[in-house]
Amino acid sequence: MNTSKQFRIEHDSIGEVKVPKNMYYGAQTQRALDNFQISGTRLQHSIIKAQGIIKASAAMANMKNGQLDEEMGRAIIQAAEEVTIGKWDNHFVVDVYQAGAGTSQNMNVNEVIANRASEILGGSIESKLVHPNDHVNMSQSTNDTFHSAFNMAAAEGLVNNLIPAITKLVEALKKKSEELMPIVKSGRTHLHDAIPIRLGQEFSGYAETIAHTLKQLEGNLDTLYEIGLGGQAIGTEFNLHPKYIPNVMDEVCKRTKLPFRSPQNMFAFTQNPRAAIRTMLTLKELAVHLIKITSDLRLLSSGPRTGFAEISLPSVQPGSTIMPGKVNPAILEMVHMVSCQIIGYEAAMATAGIAGQLEINVMMPVMAFTLIHSIDLLTNAITTLVTKCIDGIEGNVEKCREHMENSLALVTGLSSSMGYDLASQIGMQADEENKSLEQVLKEKGLLTKETMSAIDPNSMV
Amino acid sequence: MNTSKQFRIEHDSIGEVKVPKNMYYGAQTQRALDNFQISGTRLQHSIIKAQGIIKASAAMANMKNGQLDEEMGRAIIQAAEEVTIGKWDNHFVVDVYQAGAGTSQNMNVNEVIANRASEILGGSIESKLVHPNDHVNMSQSTNDTFHSAFNMAAAEGLVNNLIPAITKLVEALKKKSEELMPIVKSGRTHLHDAIPIRLGQEFSGYAETIAHTLKQLEGNLDTLYEIGLGGQAIGTEFNLHPKYIPNVMDEVCKRTKLPFRSPQNMFAFTQNPRAAIRTMLTLKELAVHLIKITSDLRLLSSGPRTGFAEISLPSVQPGSTIMPGKVNPAILEMVHMVSCQIIGYEAAMATAGIAGQLEINVMMPVMAFTLIHSIDLLTNAITTLVTKCIDGIEGNVEKCREHMENSLALVTGLSSSMGYDLASQIGMQADEENKSLEQVLKEKGLLTKETMSAIDPNSMV
Amino acid sequence: MNTSKQFRIEHDSIGEVKVPKNMYYGAQTQRALDNFQISGTRLQHSIIKAQGIIKASAAMANMKNGQLDEEMGRAIIQAAEEVTIGKWDNHFVVDVYQAGAGTSQNMNVNEVIANRASEILGGSIESKLVHPNDHVNMSQSTNDTFHSAFNMAAAEGLVNNLIPAITKLVEALKKKSEELMPIVKSGRTHLHDAIPIRLGQEFSGYAETIAHTLKQLEGNLDTLYEIGLGGQAIGTEFNLHPKYIPNVMDEVCKRTKLPFRSPQNMFAFTQNPRAAIRTMLTLKELAVHLIKITSDLRLLSSGPRTGFAEISLPSVQPGSTIMPGKVNPAILEMVHMVSCQIIGYEAAMATAGIAGQLEINVMMPVMAFTLIHSIDLLTNAITTLVTKCIDGIEGNVEKCREHMENSLALVTGLSSSMGYDLASQIGMQADEENKSLEQVLKEKGLLTKETMSAIDPNSMV
Amino acid sequence: MNTSKQFRIEHDSIGEVKVPKNMYYGAQTQRALDNFQISGTRLQHSIIKAQGIIKASAAMANMKNGQLDEEMGRAIIQAAEEVTIGKWDNHFVVDVYQAGAGTSQNMNVNEVIANRASEILGGSIESKLVHPNDHVNMSQSTNDTFHSAFNMAAAEGLVNNLIPAITKLVEALKKKSEELMPIVKSGRTHLHDAIPIRLGQEFSGYAETIAHTLKQLEGNLDTLYEIGLGGQAIGTEFNLHPKYIPNVMDEVCKRTKLPFRSPQNMFAFTQNPRAAIRTMLTLKELAVHLIKITSDLRLLSSGPRTGFAEISLPSVQPGSTIMPGKVNPAILEMVHMVSCQIIGYEAAMATAGIAGQLEINVMMPVMAFTLIHSIDLLTNAITTLVTKCIDGIEGNVEKCREHMENSLALVTGLSSSMGYDLASQIGMQADEENKSLEQVLKEKGLLTKETMSAIDPNSMV
Repeated sequence: MNTSKQFRIEHDSIGEVKVPKNMYYGAQTQRALDNFQISGTRLQHSIIKAQGIIKASAAMANMKNGQLDEEMGRAIIQAAEEVTIGKWDNHFVVDVYQAGAGTSQNMNVNEVIANRASEILGGSIESKLVHPNDHVNMSQSTNDTFHSAFNMAAAEGLVNNLIPAITKLVEALKKKSEELMPIVKSGRTHLHDAIPIRLGQEFSGYAETIAHTLKQLEGNLDTLYEIGLGGQAIGTEFNLHPKYIPNVMDEVCKRTKLPFRSPQNMFAFTQNPRAAIRTMLTLKELAVHLIKITSDLRLLSSGPRTGFAEISLPSVQPGSTIMPGKVNPAILEMVHMVSCQIIGYEAAMATAGIAGQLEINVMMPVMAFTLIHSIDLLTNAITTLVTKCIDGIEGNVEKCREHMENSLALVTGLSSSMGYDLASQIGMQADEENKSLEQVLKEKGLLTKETMSAIDPNSMV
Repeated sequence: MNTSKQFRIEHDSIGEVKVPKNMYYGAQTQRALDNFQISGTRLQHSIIKAQGIIKASAAMANMKNGQLDEEMGRAIIQAAEEVTIGKWDNHFVVDVYQAGAGTSQNMNVNEVIANRASEILGGSIESKLVHPNDHVNMSQSTNDTFHSAFNMAAAEGLVNNLIPAITKLVEALKKKSEELMPIVKSGRTHLHDAIPIRLGQEFSGYAETIAHTLKQLEGNLDTLYEIGLGGQAIGTEFNLHPKYIPNVMDEVCKRTKLPFRSPQNMFAFTQNPRAAIRTMLTLKELAVHLIKITSDLRLLSSGPRTGFAEISLPSVQPGSTIMPGKVNPAILEMVHMVSCQIIGYEAAMATAGIAGQLEINVMMPVMAFTLIHSIDLLTNAITTLVTKCIDGIEGNVEKCREHMENSLALVTGLSSSMGYDLASQIGMQADEENKSLEQVLKEKGLLTKETMSAIDPNSMV
Repeated sequence: MNTSKQFRIEHDSIGEVKVPKNMYYGAQTQRALDNFQISGTRLQHSIIKAQGIIKASAAMANMKNGQLDEEMGRAIIQAAEEVTIGKWDNHFVVDVYQAGAGTSQNMNVNEVIANRASEILGGSIESKLVHPNDHVNMSQSTNDTFHSAFNMAAAEGLVNNLIPAITKLVEALKKKSEELMPIVKSGRTHLHDAIPIRLGQEFSGYAETIAHTLKQLEGNLDTLYEIGLGGQAIGTEFNLHPKYIPNVMDEVCKRTKLPFRSPQNMFAFTQNPRAAIRTMLTLKELAVHLIKITSDLRLLSSGPRTGFAEISLPSVQPGSTIMPGKVNPAILEMVHMVSCQIIGYEAAMATAGIAGQLEINVMMPVMAFTLIHSIDLLTNAITTLVTKCIDGIEGNVEKCREHMENSLALVTGLSSSMGYDLASQIGMQADEENKSLEQVLKEKGLLTKETMSAIDPNSMV
Repeated sequence: MNTSKQFRIEHDSIGEVKVPKNMYYGAQTQRALDNFQISGTRLQHSIIKAQGIIKASAAMANMKNGQLDEEMGRAIIQAAEEVTIGKWDNHFVVDVYQAGAGTSQNMNVNEVIANRASEILGGSIESKLVHPNDHVNMSQSTNDTFHSAFNMAAAEGLVNNLIPAITKLVEALKKKSEELMPIVKSGRTHLHDAIPIRLGQEFSGYAETIAHTLKQLEGNLDTLYEIGLGGQAIGTEFNLHPKYIPNVMDEVCKRTKLPFRSPQNMFAFTQNPRAAIRTMLTLKELAVHLIKITSDLRLLSSGPRTGFAEISLPSVQPGSTIMPGKVNPAILEMVHMVSCQIIGYEAAMATAGIAGQLEINVMMPVMAFTLIHSIDLLTNAITTLVTKCIDGIEGNVEKCREHMENSLALVTGLSSSMGYDLASQIGMQADEENKSLEQVLKEKGLLTKETMSAIDPNSMV
């Protein structure tokens, strides 16, 4: 291959840059690519898609307001729509860990759209018929558009992916709760024998806990729907056409079918991505509860011979490379691992959140990546949890009955008639002498129809 | 003093215990005191107060339901009310780091009330006319009452202390925003010169950010209002009188004047203190924003000669032990320190939150202490911030004007007429040659009335 | 009481302040007291003690260097020694959340010593014979002394308290390991049946894990021993007598009997309290392992009838207010709670650690409080863990044997002779049909002396 | 393509699985691929490489010990070496979030090597001449090998990548420190004017801080070098040839050229990946210091007209899409973002670290991914920081001198002669009346040659 043909020369305010000939991006993207060889990971398509929608919407608004030539505007919109559907995803090459605030990311989309639109207008990729800043970025700045794109991608991820996944988890837990309601077992507090409970009651608690967090997450959407298009660099709506904001917002809503709106105060929006910080906190809440619940399920399914063994999980793959026949709670463990990562991502988000300075928070790219990745991870983990684990859980009636009957906490049933102190003595004696409550009652001459009925677990649930 | 008279002998299911004669608490409290010499810190009065209210309310409900003798019930209520108003606060001696789930804390209140009620009934402190478990703890368990007390204390702390404090902060920031609105200065992004902004606009963003978190915190109240009295040990409402829950809840609402209600699902309530976990996450959100805002104010007030010096803070105390005349942003630094601690407390809360197992989360005492302490710290820090700092901030008109006029970002005003590329060249040349934009425009023959007007900062805000 | 006599008037660079007549502190402390009503908690005595040692040592060095009058120097040293032994602890009144960098804390000690030294010299408390800045703080700044005091308090806390406590924990675990070595039980991986292990082997792992962290903590001492006395405000040793540093360091080492030394680079010391940040990270490591180990012990002692029940814990107090006879793993739960708090404190420390700016980190007071409090909490928690739990653990031989014999993982013994695949089939069939391995081998005609011996658990450990 | 030919049928203990015909992996890998569609990210090559080295080393040891047929052993070794050099990287397909403990990851390597070795022996890919468990995994378990591979990959990453990168950073900071040593400027504490300091002194502090953490990281290597090969599932060295451990360890050391050794206590190794937990804590320490230092550099380079402007950074790319000519501290911002992520990853690691239960910690896959990713991110970020930022920093002599001369903290020079109180008055008057110290001294009749010399900044450094 003739290398002189492989590159073209692009320019920016700092000077000349060699860019691969077949790539739509330009000088600034290339500089960012050279500067940031950090993670090998790029921002998610959902962010690029949102950037594309913003660029198309801005062009539409600028055209309507008479600030952008119609033909050029239409070319920009077409190019932006191609970006939106992922046609040029491999022309988006900037590392997650890039210039603060996402300047490089915004220039990547500006340059791809400008050069592609130049082609659409009949020019070559290097014809510069459309300028990335003057035309594609018209009425915009990195600070309003990247932050808005990030909120849009998060909102879409919640609406289309995570909220439906969690909703299915709640339904699965409820259904399982009903299914397991007939099975009575021993409760456990402090991991010690407690009074009886129904297996289904435990699951009803899980369902309600997740439903409660789901509601909070739905509430976060309202915050994410605030996007500050038009605020530009610092929220001052500098040199902006008075109709730009209503026009661009209309267009964004139309294209996303989501109720985005301008923020109450443009400066608050610009200063810190508060919607992302808050949403990530809710994902941490979700992770905390997922760890608690999946840990419970691992405890309840422990065994088969040396554990609690009150439930059985569907067997999805062999569990050990050395111990034949072992089947592990692999799906639950995976969810626990994802939840650890989410807790870590929230720590990253908050550490970035306190790094805002004056008019903007330059940590935004890592915040965007982290939130979107968290939404994706949780969506997949929860979906897998439902289909490959929760749905197939079975209660072990026999083991549950055995625990129910043996639990020393049944002595609680004697408290109301004989008082806490005497009941305590009976319970402790049974423990120390390794006897049943019935035996101890008998020895103490307290075995009556009434006392037997008081310690009947079936009467306790 | 005759030491034989200093102690009395109390009993519990494990055996005999020596208890100081003049203390109302009994055997189990004494054991906890002996077992847990950890931090020297006890749970807050607001939690003990809530425990007292629960004990009084439970006694009332038990009386109404005919399960508790009226005379004894009235004695318990009187003793519980004495606890509520803090009369016996120094009889509450259990360390924060105590038996899981707060069993010791619940027994402390049961024993103090039982022994005090015995006295009220005419017996001696050791007469045992009232039993701590059979009578004071009737219809209750540690698990429903401690968790409920903890929610009640948090709700009261928010309603009476933190929410009013934050409300005042929002008002102070709004007022300051209006006051500083006339002052135009240079914005800064990436800590670099940006286009002009009003000092008051920056403060309006702060006000809105805090207001936004305030709203979330008010929303958390709804979750805290769910208290599971009657759920007892594991949520099963074991052996409970059917009227107990409505009666006890009525009484609690009457005594607290807050709209507490039973949870939708008693098992979810019992499994994990989700309201506390969520509220703490919101306090972390608040801390993140407080760090951001107070860091900004420290930047803006940096100097007086070597910093930004755009605002002046009220001087509250000398700033250096070695550098005379120095005055530091001490109040802002204090708020930042408190916020660091809050972020830490949230990490503690979440780590405790994932430690729930099956029917309860035994980490509850540390969770309760941490949440209530966080509410108290933030209340005091924010109140001090308002009165000793925000209210007295003054804008430095001269310095702001100087920055406004010198900012190289004013070149942005030329973009729309001459394009981003040429404007860039002018800005970079001014920077490199350390000249004003006016000088560069002149040298380039571009100095016109129009271009001068385009870079006039006053036209940009 | 005649209020006109209760106060005296003190002055500082900002103006007049009323100070309680009987208090040794002066104007700046009083201002700090008024400004910072935040937590009601003061810095620990061990920090004040270290401040006293520094003040005495600095006075000694200043005297030696001929910069401080001998008589005044001796008075300062006497007053400082009184501070060191805690004689004036209630004159130290500044809140933990105070002026950044600890300026108020340093002035508190300067003022108490100056006024007390004035008395020692025969003047009144308000005679000002000794000046808090010119004399007591001579050759010092808040920035070098507070940071040094904080390192000194931490080093002393490690040497005298935490390291001995952890050492005892390691010894207790080792001793328990030896004691429990004869007991064979089933191992568990993924909470599922695994091949046999000795109870004592599990404890040997715990002992080694803690010993490993102990060694790291001992290594941290080396970092804490670096204290930057003489660096003053920003590390430049401004106007310092050339013998000040060697003289003051000698004196500090003599008084503390610990090998403190000057830092390799004074600016690094001044910029950020890196020794504290590092030590706190090691305490987090300790907390992580304590949670793991105490959680294991709670699992192993779960029951008595519905859990693993492989070990018994000493019974320290009744476990339930409603379920008679219940005994909980209260000490283990307490350690878990303390560990959650430590993890939180490390998050607070790191959040403060990233807030350093240029020459100092003003977050130091909260960092100091947090580290010293963590050392104290862990010392007490671990000491209690050893004496009230670990030492009294007993193995339940019967339950261990039962688990050992029933574990389906014994099938692993067949792998080497019959291969993983056939062994798997046998294990899974036993599980599905709820049979013993022996039964399945028999049914398959594989029951031989050799196969029986291959699945004999006693041959596996 | 004929789809009937695209798949082959493989078996495991659960049943039949369809596997793509051209893939070396088998049934268990395929199940894991189906079960875990979570992140789309796989474990890093460095982990797979370490797994390959272990498999080759184990085969060698098994051959030496006469347990593995020589010809088959040689085939396994060849296949494992191909894995090690990355020849089959795209046959490693299991998601990071997979079966707990890395069972799927271990089976992936077992299966690829078994099937490839079968080919080497002349069989087809499905010939099963070599068995993944019986032969490739001989003398091993997931629990000892995955944990060992993870330590090996981390150790190699530190030795070859991160430690060299940090070493270069220290050198660059030292060199820059020397270069900038002549420039005197005003120090700043609390962001307020402080006494003078040399620009190079600030950088010397940075160099020492990073060097200090580097030393800690080098110390962590010792912990990572402990790998528990032979411990197998739970540390009991079950059915192990007595020469296996020395033989396999020799081979691993020879192949990696790193001093790996067996752990002091095999059970401690198996229970929790403590080396990873510790190393991650040190990476957090590094991140804390990187945030502090890069934040300082952003402050010092703030401007050009409205900030401190004491240093200039090399200009790597245009800084704004809307404000022409703006150049941002993009590299520093990137390092700050990476550091936020590292802090988050440590939180994930610790949350996983407390989830260990009894004989193993099943969170290991996420822990492995996180640690290795952190090492990679930091290596790249730090390398970029050095070459694209630190090396090109220039001091702004003029601005530094201006700050040095104007700093009101120069008044400190008067303290020793006229006392703190009078010096304070002079400093505060200068501030309030916006005058120079010289002016105030003159007005007060205190302007002498001596006082002028006392406030000469050049005499203070």
